[in-house]
Amino acid sequence: MRPSGRTASQIRPVSITRQFTCHAEGSVLIEFGNTKVICTASVEEGVPRFMKGQGKGWITAEYSMLPRSTHTRSDREAARGKQGGRTLEIQRLIARSLRAAVDLKLLGENTILLDCDVIQADGGTRTASITGASVALADALTWMRARGLIKTNPMKYMIGAVSVGVFKGTPVADLEYLEDSVAETDMNVVMTDSGKLIEVQGTAEAEPFSFEEMQEMMELAKHALREIFDIQRAALN
Amino acid sequence: MRPSGRTASQIRPVSITRQFTCHAEGSVLIEFGNTKVICTASVEEGVPRFMKGQGKGWITAEYSMLPRSTHTRSDREAARGKQGGRTLEIQRLIARSLRAAVDLKLLGENTILLDCDVIQADGGTRTASITGASVALADALTWMRARGLIKTNPMKYMIGAVSVGVFKGTPVADLEYLEDSVAETDMNVVMTDSGKLIEVQGTAEAEPFSFEEMQEMMELAKHALREIFDIQRAALN
Amino acid sequence: MRPSGRTASQIRPVSITRQFTCHAEGSVLIEFGNTKVICTASVEEGVPRFMKGQGKGWITAEYSMLPRSTHTRSDREAARGKQGGRTLEIQRLIARSLRAAVDLKLLGENTILLDCDVIQADGGTRTASITGASVALADALTWMRARGLIKTNPMKYMIGAVSVGVFKGTPVADLEYLEDSVAETDMNVVMTDSGKLIEVQGTAEAEPFSFEEMQEMMELAKHALREIFDIQRAALN
Amino acid sequence: MRPSGRTASQIRPVSITRQFTCHAEGSVLIEFGNTKVICTASVEEGVPRFMKGQGKGWITAEYSMLPRSTHTRSDREAARGKQGGRTLEIQRLIARSLRAAVDLKLLGENTILLDCDVIQADGGTRTASITGASVALADALTWMRARGLIKTNPMKYMIGAVSVGVFKGTPVADLEYLEDSVAETDMNVVMTDSGKLIEVQGTAEAEPFSFEEMQEMMELAKHALREIFDIQRAALN
Amino acid sequence: MRPSGRTASQIRPVSITRQFTCHAEGSVLIEFGNTKVICTASVEEGVPRFMKGQGKGWITAEYSMLPRSTHTRSDREAARGKQGGRTLEIQRLIARSLRAAVDLKLLGENTILLDCDVIQADGGTRTASITGASVALADALTWMRARGLIKTNPMKYMIGAVSVGVFKGTPVADLEYLEDSVAETDMNVVMTDSGKLIEVQGTAEAEPFSFEEMQEMMELAKHALREIFDIQRAALN
Amino acid sequence: MRPSGRTASQIRPVSITRQFTCHAEGSVLIEFGNTKVICTASVEEGVPRFMKGQGKGWITAEYSMLPRSTHTRSDREAARGKQGGRTLEIQRLIARSLRAAVDLKLLGENTILLDCDVIQADGGTRTASITGASVALADALTWMRARGLIKTNPMKYMIGAVSVGVFKGTPVADLEYLEDSVAETDMNVVMTDSGKLIEVQGTAEAEPFSFEEMQEMMELAKHALREIFDIQRAALN
Repeated sequence: MRPSGRTASQIRPVSITRQFTCHAEGSVLIEFGNTKVICTASVEEGVPRFMKGQGKGWITAEYSMLPRSTHTRSDREAARGKQGGRTLEIQRLIARSLRAAVDLKLLGENTILLDCDVIQADGGTRTASITGASVALADALTWMRARGLIKTNPMKYMIGAVSVGVFKGTPVADLEYLEDSVAETDMNVVMTDSGKLIEVQGTAEAEPFSFEEMQEMMELAKHALREIFDIQRAALN
Repeated sequence: MRPSGRTASQIRPVSITRQFTCHAEGSVLIEFGNTKVICTASVEEGVPRFMKGQGKGWITAEYSMLPRSTHTRSDREAARGKQGGRTLEIQRLIARSLRAAVDLKLLGENTILLDCDVIQADGGTRTASITGASVALADALTWMRARGLIKTNPMKYMIGAVSVGVFKGTPVADLEYLEDSVAETDMNVVMTDSGKLIEVQGTAEAEPFSFEEMQEMMELAKHALREIFDIQRAALN
Repeated sequence: MRPSGRTASQIRPVSITRQFTCHAEGSVLIEFGNTKVICTASVEEGVPRFMKGQGKGWITAEYSMLPRSTHTRSDREAARGKQGGRTLEIQRLIARSLRAAVDLKLLGENTILLDCDVIQADGGTRTASITGASVALADALTWMRARGLIKTNPMKYMIGAVSVGVFKGTPVADLEYLEDSVAETDMNVVMTDSGKLIEVQGTAEAEPFSFEEMQEMMELAKHALREIFDIQRAALN
Repeated sequence: MRPSGRTASQIRPVSITRQFTCHAEGSVLIEFGNTKVICTASVEEGVPRFMKGQGKGWITAEYSMLPRSTHTRSDREAARGKQGGRTLEIQRLIARSLRAAVDLKLLGENTILLDCDVIQADGGTRTASITGASVALADALTWMRARGLIKTNPMKYMIGAVSVGVFKGTPVADLEYLEDSVAETDMNVVMTDSGKLIEVQGTAEAEPFSFEEMQEMMELAKHALREIFDIQRAALN
Repeated sequence: MRPSGRTASQIRPVSITRQFTCHAEGSVLIEFGNTKVICTASVEEGVPRFMKGQGKGWITAEYSMLPRSTHTRSDREAARGKQGGRTLEIQRLIARSLRAAVDLKLLGENTILLDCDVIQADGGTRTASITGASVALADALTWMRARGLIKTNPMKYMIGAVSVGVFKGTPVADLEYLEDSVAETDMNVVMTDSGKLIEVQGTAEAEPFSFEEMQEMMELAKHALREIFDIQRAALN
Repeated sequence: MRPSGRTASQIRPVSITRQFTCHAEGSVLIEFGNTKVICTASVEEGVPRFMKGQGKGWITAEYSMLPRSTHTRSDREAARGKQGGRTLEIQRLIARSLRAAVDLKLLGENTILLDCDVIQADGGTRTASITGASVALADALTWMRARGLIKTNPMKYMIGAVSVGVFKGTPVADLEYLEDSVAETDMNVVMTDSGKLIEVQGTAEAEPFSFEEMQEMMELAKHALREIFDIQRAALN
């Protein structure tokens, strides 16, 4: 029934390539099927002004799609002179999600900037970004410990994210573009590998959804994320 | 236990003043305790370019806080030259929520612009905005029918919204600023008066939350929204 | 002869509500008939860079109209990404006018920001803003003295403002929108309660005006402002 | 008593060079002492969108100072990415003043853009701009008539402007920078050569001014402008 | 003598991967050693306004570096709200260079947008971009012919580009970052595969260069580009 | 054969007026035929942040055209809210060229800002700007030495620039607008008065050019610049 022939709970093949580019302290290419995102983590000394003097670190994120990562070309935000609402919404979500994964005190007055650049889009770019950025972040923290910049690993959990939705009346996991573009409901779930929730964002795209449907989608997400955490763990070993 | 002495499920007094200003087709002052938002609905002929020729209408929203609606003054976004990420995120949420309430075909090629301007903030400004904008929208649609601009009422449901969260370990409804600023989890729930969900956004502010806590918060929201729908109905009669 | 039936020298009912919102050090709702403006005064420690080290304070102002404060909706300046020329011109006028009212030395190195947000417009929004901001400023200075932030009241005079103009050949005071939009000449007069001038801005909208007409308009303004100062005084007691 | 040794009513030498640059339909270098402004008038077919279909023309203006036209270098507005409030205020004043001089119906659906670029500043740049732009506008209209683009001269009057002020307690005409920067009051008066007023803008810089002082300044302005109109006329013959 | 051990005239390994991403009509990953650029060519119907009605096509380009494509992270231009001077200069160069390769009449009223996004930088990103974009452009034109959008191949030549410079007193070809950052002179040469010049940009970074050095650098470029054209041809077969 | 009747190697009359405006430390009006540019050099204490603490100075440049310096009026960049790509490209070229002329160590931690404002354009504005800015810079450095701000003259060479191109198949020097707008190739050459190259930028506008044509254009430039250096020297004595 799904365009790809997948079952309702089946996610696309997920692949994680570490050290994808050579300059960043953490650099990951994450693929959820045809969705491909470069996630880098950059370590910088110091923190933004509003965080100064608290002895704590900061984690922030930026998200972008290459203009032709999509079916038809989108305007380049740098050329238009501003980031759109969707971009800001997504990069705020990525930053919040990963910030929740880290003990900022243990990070010291350092900042980690996560850049998620979509080079090919086929649905689920924001959840792929979070899942890949978590690995890039882990690599950057390992790099910091190796250089003595931090003593203890400040990462409390690995973070994974997946989209779920109601497609033709049925809750399904990990929607690709063909499904996403016509889904009745779209929900993004961000979870810790300890099984707790970081962020849940459900939106009725075409039809309001019931409390029961929400329940089912949450179950699908929990299930899918267990698999995603296995893939993250494998990539990190 | 709550700063206001409210019980966990108790919402603040909600007041809805229609025809608050004189020019807009719908104009509402909504108050959730000390949170006060002016919500206006403006009817304009025609639709944005990307909607042209489909015989359908459009609903969009803008949100802003007066610089001194908050404890300390915030920069005016018009002076800074751009709307912040939080503003864009909220006005996208308001627009999506109200768009879901309306049969855009029945609206014809007309646009309704919802302006939500917070004049005093004490937590829950986005959910108050949605709840108030729903009433302003209803009034604007009545105005259109009275003038023969539309034949049938295109409004499928009234929309209400409320914030729920985990405060000092306990799920509570309708957080005020004192609670919101220290809550472990913050969740905004947008619902139809037919009891279905339009949008759910839950965020772990300090601690990840469990699936059970989410369940409890959803129940609190459902309960609080029943009361809010009663107040909306009363205001419209 | 005037649309409202007022005599040439008669101003609209003026009402001043102090403590209109709860966070600002001074917060006033001022109404000139159907024109309604929220004026807040916010006290901040320190002064802008160009004033540093002079031992003097600073007063600045921002002005905005809610998008639907007018007959037809205007674009939101924050969304357009810049403040228009009219806005900048008006807020410069407000700031200059109120700065003239205060002994900046006695204010110490503190800044007062005046925000004038028009929630309903019916002509004369800039003069209403100045008149209301003067009361909000007085309240903020009282607040500062109560907290020992300043020793002496730095306010040299109360400031009032009114528009006058030539409507259908006759000089009239306090133009409402219906008059303003067709007036031959429009003049804004800002005065101290000691009867001296702070600012005079006269513009030929349709026809050049004579020195004699200017004289008559100045007399009308002087007369109207006496009344306005009485209302300010009453509001402050 | 004046730094230049001028009497209170004496203006600086005014010089008007027509055809100063070769491309514009009207191009004038105007000098008020050391203040030098290039004023060009550019004729374009058509009118801005909001004027379309009314059979009327439009006149607009832009004003700028070369970064080093002043004692210390100012930021270039193009580099900062926006025009400042003072610039917008001045160019609005120039446009309003010259628009008042022209019968827009006789201009047909054509636009004239007036560019006033200050190459050297020594006080009074806005009044010099208006005075020079009036000549450039006259030349552009002559050019249009010569080409048959318009039949009748739509210029109703020549426009002149001068600054007056209170300097060390005495009203004086045509303030140069040394006077302007310490004047108690500054007033700009725009007049038609028929002796009527187009715009009056008086500002208390240091001290409020009396109705009598205003009267005296207006007289000085009237006197000075008579001389300026003679110089304009001479330049045009 | 060169950090990489290369001889003065030796270029880095160049690799060209076609169909690197799946949506664009032409999509190439080009690598000059560690410099990696994704070049896509997007076909759009119609031309920009200034080209309309001439029966000719248009080719334009945009260039960007991922924030962490460099040793230390650079600000994201979309976040800063504008493209820097270097970016604009480079994308103008890319567009001019490729436009010179195409008979715009044969392209019809179609636009091809070339996006060059640097994912890893090690010197020579602009010349790699041009070389890669030429292949992506060729693929997009083939795509257009296959769909009958154009009849004849409008590409007059393949375009290649290479940087040459004076490093420690010796002219060398294809500078990598270590060389580029300390080179006395830096020159970018864009050539057709028929051996003619499209663009030459030489800059004295540390020391003025002689006419003889320029001559030598031009010879090195000609030589290097012959090799680059071979690699392009191989990639296209 | 040239529209002006000039021979292929003949440049237009070049005139240099020093102290053209009165405030800048160096102020030059340079004319290449009908191309007229005001070049000012402003001395400021201190250097931009990225140069601090190195004991070296900085030279930067800004370029602009008055809106009506051209045949048809161009938009004012300050009004559009950003500088175009061409402007940024040119001012980067001017700054690089003049920076190469100066020993930044001898300049101390001071900045010189070069402003090149075109008041009339007839081709070759960027090369006229560089040639004029070199004289303004020399004057500003003399001013600094006179005030003891620097001990030794940090200027290593005078800098001159000229455009050359291929017009109707023949290489010619110093193209005016009529030639420039139809030239097959356009090349800007920046040279020191010691005969070495600072910058060479050649662009195929209509047709690729051969290595031989480039050689010829370089010879023409060298020849023309010798004459230009004579005129600079004469102006400085």
